[in-house]
Formats: sequence, structure tokens, C-alpha cells
Amino acid sequence: MSILVVGSVAYDTVETPFGRAERVLGGSASFFSVAASFFSPVNLVGVVGRDFGDEQLAAFRDRPIDLEGLERMEGETFHWQGKYSLDLNSRDTICTDLNVFEFFQPKIPTRYRGSEVVFLGNIDPVLQRRVLEQVERPRIVACDTMNFWIHGKPDELRKTLEKVQILLVNDQEARELSGEWNLVKAAAAIRAMGPRTVVVKKGEHGVLMFDDAGCFAAPALPLETVFDPTGAGDTFAGGFLGYLASTGQEGDAALRRAVIVGSTLASFCVEAFSLDRLVTLSRPEIDERYRAFERLTRFESL
Amino acid sequence: MSILVVGSVAYDTVETPFGRAERVLGGSASFFSVAASFFSPVNLVGVVGRDFGDEQLAAFRDRPIDLEGLERMEGETFHWQGKYSLDLNSRDTICTDLNVFEFFQPKIPTRYRGSEVVFLGNIDPVLQRRVLEQVERPRIVACDTMNFWIHGKPDELRKTLEKVQILLVNDQEARELSGEWNLVKAAAAIRAMGPRTVVVKKGEHGVLMFDDAGCFAAPALPLETVFDPTGAGDTFAGGFLGYLASTGQEGDAALRRAVIVGSTLASFCVEAFSLDRLVTLSRPEIDERYRAFERLTRFESL
Repeated sequence: MSILVVGSVAYDTVETPFGRAERVLGGSASFFSVAASFFSPVNLVGVVGRDFGDEQLAAFRDRPIDLEGLERMEGETFHWQGKYSLDLNSRDTICTDLNVFEFFQPKIPTRYRGSEVVFLGNIDPVLQRRVLEQVERPRIVACDTMNFWIHGKPDELRKTLEKVQILLVNDQEARELSGEWNLVKAAAAIRAMGPRTVVVKKGEHGVLMFDDAGCFAAPALPLETVFDPTGAGDTFAGGFLGYLASTGQEGDAALRRAVIVGSTLASFCVEAFSLDRLVTLSRPEIDERYRAFERLTRFESL
Repeated sequence: MSILVVGSVAYDTVETPFGRAERVLGGSASFFSVAASFFSPVNLVGVVGRDFGDEQLAAFRDRPIDLEGLERMEGETFHWQGKYSLDLNSRDTICTDLNVFEFFQPKIPTRYRGSEVVFLGNIDPVLQRRVLEQVERPRIVACDTMNFWIHGKPDELRKTLEKVQILLVNDQEARELSGEWNLVKAAAAIRAMGPRTVVVKKGEHGVLMFDDAGCFAAPALPLETVFDPTGAGDTFAGGFLGYLASTGQEGDAALRRAVIVGSTLASFCVEAFSLDRLVTLSRPEIDERYRAFERLTRFESL
């Protein structure tokens, strides 16, 4: 099944304790699309400025990523600059220049409208619903959001969530969206808003997924070196939905495998700046690391 | 195999958002012993004051817990008072009255000296070694410690660690002991100090175990209500070592099952104040919750 993703394509300037990357490819739709493309064809909808050239598109080339929906507008591309703490567990945003992204009105090309899976990246919930109005009958609608919308447009976000089957958020967002500190209660409250499946990303502490069958806990892969965490959450989402779309299944067992595939892709993402590791990744490497997650978590019955 | 545990037996006064418990049974050796006693006989070494009566001993009664080593000294019993934050993720110590525990010199009764498994609770590393001098030829020596000793007696702690096979610490202690923020590096550094197996407890984020076979990650059970986290780490240690002693095995597969048994016991501990939930616990309840951990973590191969 093909996946429609709507989100940001950006320039990132990132400082970590290990170095600095200047105006490299970033944005939620970029990480998502490359991760998902290992499993399913991707239809990308986003916007860039005139300063975004062919060189930046190299990461998408030779992959099943359709770029007809990547609009090019007058102006400059979205630019985010951030600096990570020594332990990589927190980051300061130094600047967020929305540029052309501020005026983004997602237009879905005709040939994208039959996409069976839709991923609504972290944009205005009003725009998220406008995307859904332009697609035909997707089998799965998944969605990301952030504190900016949780607090800024709570009612619009609620209306969007009613149309969503899978919500992917981090633990802090789950708490703020639900008003519950406890993640079990938070997930139950969010599921009552619409999404049958809530995937709570906890960074280095892994993922909790809540669905009709109960709860699934997956660790993050303990890595000796985390180089740059930027994009790990979007890469997780790409691996998760890319795999799910490839199976055609929607049950708990497929969702669990999708969580591990997402975690696998995310564990590669953080090994280098930008999409540098993802673009050199091979399917055998993905399969091998998926097996590493099996070895990491297996235990026998009593 | 029988387990020798040396640690504190205390009165706890605990305030959580759900209520307050005044001078209830606490201390590392108390939680450890009751948890371990579901699987193996326990020989307890500790000290209490004249204010510690038969009523307090009720939690140990009718269990395979030998109390010959529980010394009664002139003076008052160790008393700890703490108050948890609203989210239960942090706590302030309001008072630590060591009382008789300040003068604790562990004396190992003759009939304890053949114990095959030894758990050195969080006491002065000099005393921990003195305990080891009084036992014959234990198959497994496990050890806990804390920041107070990591910073206060680093050289003595290193000498103790050379004699230890399994170290159980929380993530912050692992970082401070090793000087490494990254837990993979921290565990490698600690393993180089002596313990072949390092169990890193991360509270609500579960456990990472590092041994000869690699790394094992176990989640904590996502609970809707955590009533009082006091003693969860010691309860984990008790379940872990109690189970391990009962199997007579020391390999990776047994260690992994032991981590899940420890996590299982800890998930019950936090459901009530003090040892209130542990003392009503039955073996079928433990088995059923172990299976809940299986359901929580299982996923299929790709």
C-alpha cells in the first residue's frame, strides 16, 4: 500500500557534543519518507523554497518516493537550528525560521488521492483535516502533533483526532494532551478521543503502544554512541507505517512488529547527522538489527 | 540454595499523593527477604532497636526467613522519612535517623555461613567485605550500593566490587560509579571492576542487564496506579536473587528470567504502602503477572 506523508522538509543546523552540521537536510517528512521507503512507496507533500536545490533531493532519489507533491515556493526553506546538551537528553532551539512553511497549504496531487495510508505530520490540525478531505478512503490515518498545537488549538486538534486511527506522540505530549501524568491513564484518555492505537515514544527508554489488545513495551536499542538524535521520532514513524503499509495487516501482531521496525530505523538514524546513515542503509542491515531487538528482549517462560 | 542478605530493617514514614504511612516496616533487607522468600530460604542479618516488637516481625513470620541474624540492640530502630512528589518520580528525604544502624557490625551466625547466595545490601563497603570474610564459599555474591559510598569510599567500594559477581544499581548510580553518562559504556566500565553481571534499574523505565551474553532490556509493567514506590528496588533484588537461587543456574537465560521475576515482584510492591501487598501475595499471582510481562513484550520475527 502507498503512504501519503504531509510534513516539513527543512534545513537543519545541529550542534551536538560530537560536532556541528550546517544547513543539512531535515524536517519530519524527510526522515519519515526515507525510513518508510524501505518498505512501501511514499507520496510526499511538503514545501521548500528557492534555496532548495537538486543536491538536497539526492536523499530521496532512487527510492520509491514521489516528489510531485513537494511544492517549491518563492522564499526560503524552513530552517531549524538546535543545540544538544552534553548528555543529548535535552536540546535548545536556537532558531526556527518557518519561512515558506509558514504559508504551507497542503495540496494533494490527483495521483496521491488513492493512498491507502496517510501520515499527518506535525502541522496545524486544521491543515491536517484539510489533507484528509483531499484523500479518498485511506485504510489507516496516523498522526503526529506537538505541544504547540495541544495548547494553541486544542479544539481543532480534538476534531482531527476523531478521524485518526493511530496517534504517535512522545510521553510529554501524551501527558499534556490527556491531562494525565500516568501514561496508562493518558493513553486511555487519548484512545477515548478517537485513535484506537496510541504509540508513546519515550526516546532512549523506548516505546509503549496501547491498542485494542492491551499494551506493548519495546525498548530502544542501547547504543554506545548516539551521535545526533534529530529526526529519530519521525524516522520511527516512517519505519512503523512503512512496514505496516507493506503488510496490509492492521492487527496487534503487525502493530508490534511495526513498533520494532520503527525502533530499528530510529536506532540507525541517531548514528549520524541528518539522514546520512539512513541513505546508506540496506535491507539486510535492517533485518539484522531487528534480530538484535529480538535478542535484546527475549526471555523464557517460568 | 539459601540466600544470606545483609541490610537495613527500618521504620519508614512515607507521604505520597495518596496518603501517609507512619512508622511502617521498611528497610532494604525487609523488602528483599519477603520477596526472595517466595522462591528460596533467606537468612537475614540486620539490626533493630528495642522499639521493634513482635508486631513488626509479622511480615517475616510463616516464611522461610531465618531471623537468628536479626540483632536487637539498645536504642531505637533506623527510621527513614520521605515525601514523594505528585508524579511519584522524585522524593525528598525528610529525615534519616540511623539510630542503632549507625553502629551495625554484621555478625553472621554459624548456621548462615554455608549460604550459597549472598546479597550485600547498601551498607559501608568495608562492612560488605567483612560479611564475605564470614561466609564459606558462596556461589553467587550480589551487591547493591549508593552514591553515598560511591563518593565517600570509592577505593573501599572498588575492593568490594572485585569480589562481587552481580551488581544491582540504579541508572544514576551506574553513571556516578563509572564516570560514564552512556549506560552501555557505564556497564562496560563497571564490569571491568569485577562484576560479570550489571543490573541497571531504571524505575518506571524498567531494567537493563549486561552480562557475558550481551544486553537484556526489560520494561517495568505499565501500571495505572503506583501507590508507593518505596522498596521497589530492594523487592526487585529479592525476586531476582530468590529466583536465581531457586534455579541453581547462573547462565544468561536464568538471569533474564530472574530480571522478569524481580520486575514482577516490584510491580506488586508499589501497589501499597510498606510490605502490605507483598505479604498478601500468592505464588499463582506471581506466575500470572510473569505471564503479563510475556504478553507485554512479545513480538514476532519479521
